[in-house]
Amino acid sequence: METLPREESTRRIARLQYQLRAANDAEAVIVLQDVDLYYFTGTAQDAWLVIPAEGAPLLLVRRHLERARRESPLEQILPFSSGREIPALLAERGLGGLRRVGLEFDVLPVEQYARIGRLFPTMQLVDASPLIRQLRMVKSPYEVERIRRAARIADRMARRMCEVLRPGITELELAAEVEAEARRHGHQGLVRTRRFNQALHYGHLLSGENGAVPSAQDSATGGNGLSPAFGNSVGSRRILAHEPVLLDYVGVSEGYHADQTRLFTIGGLPADMRAALQVCIEILEDALACLRPGVRAGEVYARALALAGRRGYADRFMNTGAAQVNFVGHGVGLELDEIPVLAGQSDLGLEPGMTLAIEPKIVFPGRGMVGVEDTLLVTAGPPECLTVTPRELVVL
Amino acid sequence: METLPREESTRRIARLQYQLRAANDAEAVIVLQDVDLYYFTGTAQDAWLVIPAEGAPLLLVRRHLERARRESPLEQILPFSSGREIPALLAERGLGGLRRVGLEFDVLPVEQYARIGRLFPTMQLVDASPLIRQLRMVKSPYEVERIRRAARIADRMARRMCEVLRPGITELELAAEVEAEARRHGHQGLVRTRRFNQALHYGHLLSGENGAVPSAQDSATGGNGLSPAFGNSVGSRRILAHEPVLLDYVGVSEGYHADQTRLFTIGGLPADMRAALQVCIEILEDALACLRPGVRAGEVYARALALAGRRGYADRFMNTGAAQVNFVGHGVGLELDEIPVLAGQSDLGLEPGMTLAIEPKIVFPGRGMVGVEDTLLVTAGPPECLTVTPRELVVL
Repeated sequence: METLPREESTRRIARLQYQLRAANDAEAVIVLQDVDLYYFTGTAQDAWLVIPAEGAPLLLVRRHLERARRESPLEQILPFSSGREIPALLAERGLGGLRRVGLEFDVLPVEQYARIGRLFPTMQLVDASPLIRQLRMVKSPYEVERIRRAARIADRMARRMCEVLRPGITELELAAEVEAEARRHGHQGLVRTRRFNQALHYGHLLSGENGAVPSAQDSATGGNGLSPAFGNSVGSRRILAHEPVLLDYVGVSEGYHADQTRLFTIGGLPADMRAALQVCIEILEDALACLRPGVRAGEVYARALALAGRRGYADRFMNTGAAQVNFVGHGVGLELDEIPVLAGQSDLGLEPGMTLAIEPKIVFPGRGMVGVEDTLLVTAGPPECLTVTPRELVVL
Repeated sequence: METLPREESTRRIARLQYQLRAANDAEAVIVLQDVDLYYFTGTAQDAWLVIPAEGAPLLLVRRHLERARRESPLEQILPFSSGREIPALLAERGLGGLRRVGLEFDVLPVEQYARIGRLFPTMQLVDASPLIRQLRMVKSPYEVERIRRAARIADRMARRMCEVLRPGITELELAAEVEAEARRHGHQGLVRTRRFNQALHYGHLLSGENGAVPSAQDSATGGNGLSPAFGNSVGSRRILAHEPVLLDYVGVSEGYHADQTRLFTIGGLPADMRAALQVCIEILEDALACLRPGVRAGEVYARALALAGRRGYADRFMNTGAAQVNFVGHGVGLELDEIPVLAGQSDLGLEPGMTLAIEPKIVFPGRGMVGVEDTLLVTAGPPECLTVTPRELVVL
């Protein structure tokens, strides 16, 4: 099994330390969430990662020390069995007396936060999640290569659709085949989302009117799901000819995600839906043409919305009414819902190394959703498309 | 699609209100996590559920109102678009001026908690998660029926193993087939875990020495996984004859989980592993014999551990060394990791309606894991086994 190269871990930690010193706020960050732990250390064991603004990071591992030592290039990896040992362990390593420490407020449960407060009663705890998310936003070539691999899995899923989509198959039966194909090609199964209440299983596979059903997911698509207990994506609906079948599924390889949407149909689509898909492709290609370093994330959305408006879809772009969302894309990496969000209000400037999913979609209320999505790499020149499946409607 | 019967929702909310009044502590609970929302309301839309100690509950929905109204039997379901509207909406409905309110501290991120604190600067926020988890611990017949359905999906997965397990197949290829079969029979895909950093994909499918590899998962089994980014369950290892192949996979139906473990092998297992599996089955059957209302959860574990010790497996029961866990089972329901945990220190008394997964396992370091697991219903009399697959070793 491949492990994270030492230079990746070293550079990621050095960048965090640089930002900590530049901000001159927190003296250290304590990382506890498994994905962030993996990002900095190469291991996602049950651990506390303490990164001081200056000096060597310390990884304290509860479960399992041997795996952490095998997987991570870090030098200081020590065991602990109870959180009560942590203050003394920090003090022994010259990390006692920290007065102001950053934590991942966006994912850390209140219970863990309160426990840390009791362990360190005089320590001020501040939010380090914006800093961590901003570091993770710009990918190294090593990370981009993993997203490329994930994109090839997404392509396998799209190809599998062509083999198994037939009149009368249910959404769920189709999902079973597509997901199995992804697994055979190395998909880790789990799609990681960072935000509260946004758990997902592979993505959204939606046919006909189910494509127009909104859900609690913060996305243009939703779907009824199999039950209100997990009310999004596939249901037991049978797929018929001349309906849009949207595959918005996520490839994942070595923890990295590639988000792709393609549209399928049996026997062809009505002209209005074909035309709307062409507009989605036009919007995506227009976004590609303007995706340069320095462009604000909000501009990408504004431009997409304006083009949708000029083509007559302003009120159905990215869904409609209360279900309409005000973004056209988002960062992808070790989690599906990374920054920047390509949303109206975002002032973040694009940088080389950002990997973005751009997903223009147009809804037909009561009839379905059409759209397209690629995962792209921002470079110093034109963006590079990491997803590889042809964008055109697939007619079976 | 079936929706939650009104009487289920009414009784669940009434039980919470009764406990709130009995504790005479918080004046209300605000529920925000999607699974808890579904439990009380029948819908998991993006919403705030406000349950006062007395009076009608109020469901405020951001996304999507129409779905919440269609799925939930609650009477007061109102829209909101920004959290800033919430204080006024509560005041209008006679819920202004709450001084002490319970939140789900075990799952709520610090960021959301801090935002609520800013919206209600004079409100004291306390932890309602122990109360909610204790309510959810005892299932209604409606819930037990859904766990039965989930158990039938678990049985389908075990049967599929018999069809596809052959020498040379990889763990991942096998997982692809087993998961597809689960989906075809209605599995929702997502396995819900409540605890921080415990995300899982279906469960653990482990062959040979991979069964003995511990992970960050708080369980006897772990496995290397496909990469350190998600380091548990299947890898790309090829399965050979005369190895243990452990299927610890979770069926899920309408949100409800059934946890089952069965052991498979191609061509038979060495005598020491066969003997250890028989001891696991003996421990499970012994636990069944003592599973009565009033028995403490900790006693079930102590008894299992004592029996393992008498058979000579004390140091390899539920893994070994630092990887050994000190429990033999756990509650299951809308989440996989419910209470009670059948752990040494637990004083919780068993009650009719609890649904428990009991999973005695014995490790062979460097060679693998053997074990068995059933999901059981505690009744006034003998417990009822909800999982239906025969417990014996399957030799292919």
